[in-house]
Order: sequence, then C-alpha cells, then structure tokens
Amino acid sequence: MNYSQNFIPTLREVPADAVIASHRLMFRAGLIRKLANGLFAYLPLGLRSFRKVEKIIKEEMDAVGALEIKPPVVQPAELWKESGRWDAMGQSLLRVKNRLDHDFIVSPTAEEAFTALVRDELSSYRQLPLTLYQINTKYRDEVRPRYGVMRGREFTMKDAYSWHENENSLDKTYQEMGQAYRRIFKRCGLTVLPVKADSGAMGGSGSEEFMVESEVGDNTLILCKSQTQGLCDYAANVEKASCKADFAGIMSIEEAKTAAANTPAFEKIDTPNVKTIDELCSFLNAEPKTFIKTLIYRAENVELDLSSIPSCAKLERKKPSPDAPAVYAEVFFAAAIRGDLDVNEVKLAAILKASEVTLASDTDVVRLTGAPVGFAGPIGLTTLPLVIDHSVTVMNNAVTGALAKDLHYKHAAYGRDFEAWLVDDIRTVKAGDTCIICGSELYTKMGNELGHIFKLGYKYTRSMNVSYLDVNGKSQTPTMGCYGIGVDRTLASVIEEHHDEAGIIWPVSLAPYHITIIPIKYDGAVKEAADKLADQLTAAGIEVLLDDRNERPGVKFNDADLTGIPYRVVIGDKGLGQEVPQVEVKSRKEKETFMADLDKAAEELTQKIHKELTLLSGC
Amino acid sequence: MNYSQNFIPTLREVPADAVIASHRLMFRAGLIRKLANGLFAYLPLGLRSFRKVEKIIKEEMDAVGALEIKPPVVQPAELWKESGRWDAMGQSLLRVKNRLDHDFIVSPTAEEAFTALVRDELSSYRQLPLTLYQINTKYRDEVRPRYGVMRGREFTMKDAYSWHENENSLDKTYQEMGQAYRRIFKRCGLTVLPVKADSGAMGGSGSEEFMVESEVGDNTLILCKSQTQGLCDYAANVEKASCKADFAGIMSIEEAKTAAANTPAFEKIDTPNVKTIDELCSFLNAEPKTFIKTLIYRAENVELDLSSIPSCAKLERKKPSPDAPAVYAEVFFAAAIRGDLDVNEVKLAAILKASEVTLASDTDVVRLTGAPVGFAGPIGLTTLPLVIDHSVTVMNNAVTGALAKDLHYKHAAYGRDFEAWLVDDIRTVKAGDTCIICGSELYTKMGNELGHIFKLGYKYTRSMNVSYLDVNGKSQTPTMGCYGIGVDRTLASVIEEHHDEAGIIWPVSLAPYHITIIPIKYDGAVKEAADKLADQLTAAGIEVLLDDRNERPGVKFNDADLTGIPYRVVIGDKGLGQEVPQVEVKSRKEKETFMADLDKAAEELTQKIHKELTLLSGC
Repeated sequence: MNYSQNFIPTLREVPADAVIASHRLMFRAGLIRKLANGLFAYLPLGLRSFRKVEKIIKEEMDAVGALEIKPPVVQPAELWKESGRWDAMGQSLLRVKNRLDHDFIVSPTAEEAFTALVRDELSSYRQLPLTLYQINTKYRDEVRPRYGVMRGREFTMKDAYSWHENENSLDKTYQEMGQAYRRIFKRCGLTVLPVKADSGAMGGSGSEEFMVESEVGDNTLILCKSQTQGLCDYAANVEKASCKADFAGIMSIEEAKTAAANTPAFEKIDTPNVKTIDELCSFLNAEPKTFIKTLIYRAENVELDLSSIPSCAKLERKKPSPDAPAVYAEVFFAAAIRGDLDVNEVKLAAILKASEVTLASDTDVVRLTGAPVGFAGPIGLTTLPLVIDHSVTVMNNAVTGALAKDLHYKHAAYGRDFEAWLVDDIRTVKAGDTCIICGSELYTKMGNELGHIFKLGYKYTRSMNVSYLDVNGKSQTPTMGCYGIGVDRTLASVIEEHHDEAGIIWPVSLAPYHITIIPIKYDGAVKEAADKLADQLTAAGIEVLLDDRNERPGVKFNDADLTGIPYRVVIGDKGLGQEVPQVEVKSRKEKETFMADLDKAAEELTQKIHKELTLLSGC
Repeated sequence: MNYSQNFIPTLREVPADAVIASHRLMFRAGLIRKLANGLFAYLPLGLRSFRKVEKIIKEEMDAVGALEIKPPVVQPAELWKESGRWDAMGQSLLRVKNRLDHDFIVSPTAEEAFTALVRDELSSYRQLPLTLYQINTKYRDEVRPRYGVMRGREFTMKDAYSWHENENSLDKTYQEMGQAYRRIFKRCGLTVLPVKADSGAMGGSGSEEFMVESEVGDNTLILCKSQTQGLCDYAANVEKASCKADFAGIMSIEEAKTAAANTPAFEKIDTPNVKTIDELCSFLNAEPKTFIKTLIYRAENVELDLSSIPSCAKLERKKPSPDAPAVYAEVFFAAAIRGDLDVNEVKLAAILKASEVTLASDTDVVRLTGAPVGFAGPIGLTTLPLVIDHSVTVMNNAVTGALAKDLHYKHAAYGRDFEAWLVDDIRTVKAGDTCIICGSELYTKMGNELGHIFKLGYKYTRSMNVSYLDVNGKSQTPTMGCYGIGVDRTLASVIEEHHDEAGIIWPVSLAPYHITIIPIKYDGAVKEAADKLADQLTAAGIEVLLDDRNERPGVKFNDADLTGIPYRVVIGDKGLGQEVPQVEVKSRKEKETFMADLDKAAEELTQKIHKELTLLSGC
C-alpha cells in the first residue's frame, strides 16, 4: 500500500494526558484517537495490528476446540438479575432503558448470556465438555479511565466459557487454556508472568492471571528472586500470595504452651489514649512484632458451617436459591496477627468462604468488643469467632488489647492464655518475605492483567438453573470455566515492552506492515525500483507500506521509526547506480544498516520475516 | 471439523414468531438463537457464514481504497447534538447515561463519529479524497423488531464515509462504491435491484438503494415491465419514482389557456356536507380524475428562496449555523393534483428543499383557506404558495374546492382561472403508470433495503465545522458521501433467495462448510476413508464438516439438507467394496446423486468448488 493513499496522522506532540509509553506512541504514530474520555477509535494502522492480535487469539482458541459465537453486546437485564450481578456489579455496569422502559446493559463480560444460551440447548452429557467464545466489544464504566486503551471504558475482550460434567474435565480444559494463553502471548512477543490469583468477584476458585510488568499496573505481584535464575517459578498476586512462616515457624497448641512456660502470667497495663500500633510502640518503647494486632471483620455470605461456635449458634443459614449452598448473610469475625504484619482480606474471605470481607464499622466494634476501636484482643474474647495467623502461634510474650478503653495486656501467650477457632495463613506477603517454595527472598512488582483463566464452578450454572442428563439419565448441574483476554490491553502492552525513544518496535507478528520502502525521491528509476520491489514482496505475502510521499527523507525515516515497521528499505539513485544495484536495509530493532542487492532484496527480506514469525510462534 | 465437536443445535420445530423462511431456517439449522426481542446470538455455524459476508464486504471496500477504522460503539451525545440528530432521531436512538450522568448513545450509524475524527485530522486538500469505513455493531431501538436478524435491534453494519474537494470527486467515489456494492452482492449470490431512492432523514441528494424482493419488505418499488426483458433498467423507490405524464402530457400556461377556450366560465356549486373526493364523486356522479384535489402542507426548514411570493414576504429566513444555508423554519404550501392521484410528500419535500413535509393541521387549514378541511382549491388562493402537479396543467374543465364551506367550483381551468407558483412532478407513481424512460407499464414489488449509497453533501461537514485548506490556501468545507450495508440482513436475504422446503441452499461463497462428509457408520474402513478424504480436502483449502455422529443416515441427511452445505459425500461399505472404491456425491442444489471414485473425489470436488467460487466472483 502507498503511504499517500493511507491515513496515518503521525504527531510530534505528546497529548498531555498520555503518561505511559504505549499511550503516547499509539497517539503519535496515528494508531488511535480519542473520541471521549475512555473511548478510542482505532485508525487504519492501529486496526491492522489490533486485528492481528485478534487473529492470533482466534487461531489458538480454535486449536483447543473452542467454538466462536457472537451474542449481542446489548443484553437484557433479566439475565443479570438471575445471576445476581445486576446488583453486585454496581456502577461499573452500564445500564440502559429502551423505548419500552425495559432494562438492558452494555455487556462488560458475558457469563450470563453464554450460560443462558447453553441452558436452552444442553440436554445430554454427550454434548459436554463444550467451550464457546467470542471476541467482542465490552463496556465497563470505569471511574477513572486512563493510560489510553490500557484502561478504556469500551474495549474488546476475548471471553471463553466452558461447561463440564466434572472437575477432571474442567481441569483438562483449564490446563489447555493455560497453554493456549502462553502461546498467544509468545506469538505477540510478550513476556508474561503467569501468577496464581484470587478469582475475586467472579466466584469460584482455581485461577491464573497472566500479568505483564507495568509501573502503572493495577496489581501488586509477589515474585521469587530465584525466578530470574530459572530456579523457582513462584509468582502470585499479593491478594493470594503465601510465604514461609518466619521465626519459629508454626506451633501447635501444645508446643505453644511449652514455649510459654517461662513467660509470666498476663497482666493489665494502662495505655491511656493509645489506639494504634504506632502509638503503642512509642508508649512502650517496643517493636511492632512484639504485639498481637486484633481486627474485627464483617463477612458476607459465609459458606462455612459455624453451628459449633457458641457465639454463632443463633445465626440463620439460608439458601439464596434452591440449588445453591446455604450461607450466613452476615457474620462478624476477629482476626489476630503479629503487629508488624497486615491481614490479607482476600485470603481471609477465601478461608471463610465469604463473598466479601470488610473491616467492621466503629459502632460494630464497640458493640462486639465492649471497647473503643484500638483495644480488641484475643484474651477473653467470646462474642466472636477468632481467626489467627500462623505468626501468632509462636508469640508467647506479647502485648495485646484488653477489651477495655485505655487497657492492654502484657505477657500474653498463645495456647496458654487464648486459643483460636481457626489458625491459617492470613498475612499479606511483603517484599523481603521468604518464598514458600524455595526459601529465597520475595520481591514485588506492579503488574497489569492481560488475561485470566479460572474455574468458576457452579456459581452461574446453579443460579441460572442449567442442567443436563448424565449417563444414567439423572439430572446434573455442569461445572464451568471462564477464560478472558483483553485485546486492546495486550496490544498496548506489546508497545510497552517493545519501543525506544524514537517509537514503536513491532514484533513482525503484530506489525501493521512488515516492511516500509522509502524511495529517496519517488520518481524515475527510483520509483520503478521501489514499485517493483513492493510488487515482489507483496506477491510473496509480505505486507508493504511504500512511502511515496513528497517529503524529505528525514521525515520519512522518523515516521518509519515512530510507526515501528520491522524493516526499512531505502532506495536512492546512489545505490541503484552501483555496478550491482543496491538498496539500504535496516531492521527497526538494530542500529546498523546494511546494503543488499536490489535483485535479491525481496527474497532475503521474505526469508528474514518468515524466520522471525516462526521464532515467535515457536514452531 | 467433526460434527460431534461442533455446536449445531438443529431443530424440527419452527419458532412461533418466525414467519419468513430465513428466520425459520436460521433457527432450525442452528445458526442463531434469540436472547431477547430483537437481540440474537450467532452460533458457530451461523457465525462462519456471517464472517464470510463481512470478509467479502471488506475485500471489496479495500479494493476501492476505503480504509478500515474502528470507532467506539458507545459514543458521546455531544457529537449528536452538534449534528442535530440527538433531537431528530427520536426514540430509535438508544440513549445511556454513565456514572457521571453524562449522555451517550449506542451507535445506530456513525456520520458524527467519523466526521469528528476527520475534522481533527484534516488540514490540506492533499489528504482528499478520503474514504473510511467500519464493520461494527449498531443498535436501533426498533418499535417492532421482527423477521429474525432481518430487522433486529442490534445488528452489524458496514458503514463507509468519504470526504471530497468537489462534486466530481464525490461522484467518482460514489460510482466506484456502486460498482463495489454490485460485486459484493454478486459474490454473495444475491439478486439485487439497485433503485433510485430518496435519502430521507440522512440529508443530501443523489442516492441508490440496493433492494432485494421480499414479501415482507419495508419498501414499495416501482419497476418497469420491460426490465425483465432487459430492455429498460428503470427501478425506483415509490418515494422518488417518476412516470410519464398521462393524457395530454404537460401544458404550458399558453397551451392551457388555448385548451380552455371552449370551457364555460367557472361557477360555484353547492356541495353540502361533501368533504372527500369519494363523497364528491358520489354527489356529482363523476370520476375522481375530473377533480382537482388541493392539500395544505406544512414544510420545515425550507431552503428555497420565497421572498418573491407575496404571501411569504414577511417570513424570516435564518442560518441555523454560520456556515449553513439560510432556511425558513416553517412554511405552509398548497399542493394541487388530479383527483385520482396522490401527492408524494417525499418528492414535494425535495422540490421545496425542505427537511420535512407533513399535512397541515385542521386548525391551520381553516386559518389559511378560510374554510373547513375539504374545500381548499386553487382559484383565488392568495394566502399560500401553490404547487401543482403536471397532471393539473391539462385540466381545463375541472371541479375543485371553492375556499368556503359546502361550496365547490365547476369548469375550473388551469391557466385561465388560476396559475401556480411551481409546476412539477409531485405524484405518487402506481402500478399501471407509464415508464418515464421506455413508456412500458410500471408494476410494484415489496423490497428490503440491503445497502444504500448516497451523496450527503455538506450536511455534517457544515454543522460540525469541518474544513481544509485548498490548493490556494483558502479554507473550504469538504463534501461528503455515505455508504452502508447491513451484514445480518444480507445474510438472511441470501437464505430467502436460496432455500427449499428441506432447508438452506448456500452459495459456496457463504457456506459455513463447503462439503459435509457422511459416513454411514463412522467405524473401520468407512471411518478411515472418511478421515482421509476430509484430510485431503482440508489440505486443498476446502472446508469440511465430517458427520461423525452415531446417528441414523436419515438424520444426518436431513441435517445436511437443513444446514445447506453445498456438497454432501456419503461413504459406506457398499461403495467402498466396489472394484474401484466409490463414494456418493450430491450437490445441495440438485436432486440427483452421482458416484465418484474415492481416490479422485477430493480433486473433483475441489475443482467444482473453485469453479463455483470463480463464477460468483465473476473473475
């Protein structure tokens, strides 16, 4: 294609709101334009790369037997009310009323629509497993859209859903998807960090997030230092990360009692106006790790059976729908942890099998502990189930709240002075903690999620009443998996990873064109040679942008660098005048140029590009 | 692909609301499912054909130099307020408020978004002409969605827009688009009727609609009977159709005066309680064609200069925006026509250069004619500009309203008793009228619009202030064209044209698979032969659906007919047992089967399919 026939509005200026490289470069290289806050238009050059990402995703989905369908983008609210997400999604769901005052939404994801479709068509176990997907427009009413298409309001997502007879079948598809995702990102030239992740509001458990490192990432990742040497593959979202218990490890009640043998009996100390750990440290001139911090949490929709806990004996347990497990709508818990550590609410929610866990209000704290905020503690606490972190099990001479205003205990010892309802890992892992697999030091990075695969389980199939007849003719509910990739975000992340100061450096697999031919002046013998080379390359299946503009070579070179076309071929009178006519070739990745025989250039370049494509696809 | 790995839920039953063949068959063959009223999901088989329509459209757009872009589907209301369509589109526009209470719409078409993009990037005449397009999700909040995807609420449309320095350049692109559209429909195997059409609410003039005949079509088409013999190509939407003036043709004032020489002077006749033409016919025992019917119309945004008309001298003419032409916001007109004919309001609006023309209210009629509805007439009418149809020019002895209750005139003669401000063709053409080109009889058909190309002119570029610098450095407003095709509707129309009682008969260009291989029993030597043939065909680029299901052959044959795969190959023990192993081949289009050598089947079928594809593409 000739440049003058294209529409590539490159810019020198950087838009003021573009703080990350991909946003800046997508604007400057004329790949996108903004129509409104969080709403972008892909221009011809950007769309070519975008379509290549879509194609790679489609090929890999088809290869694992997923079937493409196309549900509508505007979907009836009824389905979202059935699943419960009409209420749960809050303001990020874009809601619409049609002319008949019926409620609709602009789809942010499509568990409901896919499940409704399958519900109507599924009858026999012979139809399972079944994996369906779409690559379609999505909308999420982000509070703060930013970083260009990295976090826009409208975006394109590949979302796949699978239905299965049992966990084994789900796991097989889940693993295949994990492999497909690795191939997709490899083919895009991306370095991803597959991390264990909490599946969050999506429900279910067993999930993997595909992250890319990003200074403006939404996620904190916990990584093992041995990973860089290929010795350990530990990588997790901080929401779910674990680490080795430090100090004396984890103690049983008996071990803890023994360890507390030489500790004096616990006793009250006056701590007037001391509410925070920091204040307590100053007041007692001690380190935070000598304190037991106790927090009160409110948990929603708790699935765990609490009937054996005296304080919970009167709580009512109800099934939200006939086929769903019974839950407690609201339960309060106390959680205790060593003073220098933080409670990880996501981990806590997972342990309690709760849909959400949040700090209790001040009023609730006063009501439940009999003291103002800041004086909760495990000793004598009978109004709440107590969950303690492993770190507390080795504390046998600690300071902790005494359930009364301006009072703490000293010499508190686990096992001797208090026990817990549950002991588990509820700490938030930090840089410097110890890898649970190899014992190396952990460090953190900020990351952006490009893809997410997870085992949804029965959340949607139960709430939306999906069933099939098993081999014995008995009605069963299928289990479900869910697999997403953000197309726009993947594209932007490739630019984040592959650029320099002059512009984008596209991997050949996603480049809008493989080669740009730059005639020094598009005229006479130079024009003839440029046209012929373009024709030869095009015939060989190579995508060529011929810069036929009447511009100075410098302008053309700058645009070639900015738009990141992998190979640049410059044709001028000087090279053509050689005994064997020459052209100048430069790879965008490299600094050096080299001369090639005009006659052989098409073949050589075709080989180079095929070689790079092969390398990316790993075949 | 193996049938058992696919998701093709075929049905015997027809959904109750499916009244047209394509709707019934798309459901029964498992191509689509309904998610809500007017909202459909394409299933794997349907989506394959859908994507082929998209691909054909894309190839033909690219071939005429149009550049694909992808604006967002959700668009800010501001743009629609700038163009004026926020108000003009009424309830068919799906409006959304986001979390910040800002107004958005779900795009039904994208003149505004494209124009806004180009406005920001266009600076020089060197960038023109420019044609951009998208193939994207659209939403129109139809009052009565029906006929499946033929008239859904959400649909996919290719919409292209072009910008030009002048009318010549616009006309060149317009003609190229017309040719591209003809190629698109030919490649889809569709018979379309390109008809002259009014461009309706879109503004501008010079347009062509691509219609398919349909008993449930939205449009009445006027066609020439000689067309079927290839003698005449006249075809028009009734909204714009013309015909030859009948009787004595069209008379000038002088001719009319001469013709009226023997007519007695006009005189009043009492017509108590006679209001309609029918009542007048009965009362006077005369035919409608002897009456002059006079109707009062209210026209909005009239561009014509009316300053020379005494009754309009006081009307104010204003520019809605600095760059737009001045218009009269509201003007009333009288229109007279022969009693047996009807006034075509679309033609009238075009003549008056009005945005809309509607019948005046009863109150306005009384105010303007001094008489109740039913007694308007051209004689002595001074309060309104009078437009007459050609048919009135030859009436020299007519009955007409006398501008007073219960009074008419007889012996009224054009030229002698009244003149007109404008004489033009304002009649609605009917079946039986005479072709304006060849003089043959005209007939009508109902049609559905699949595509529409039109010259928009300056409507959007003026209202949205688009400009560029011309070759002399002077700021100019570009003129614009607009070109749409409904993807879903095209697909459904192909099924309307190509089906029989057993199911769809896909043209090879759109078939989800080219060939279905049906092993009588998928086992042993039959399985081996089926797999091998499938592999050979796939290697040759042919798309194969291998029906590996454990079903009776009858069931498989029915599904093959229903889903309309162009070729069916049946493999059984009997055929394989011949001296030279045989398979049975049947074209979906034909009744007869024939036997083919197993070894040569792949090659023969590949040739057949390529031949049919070539035939469709016309290359």
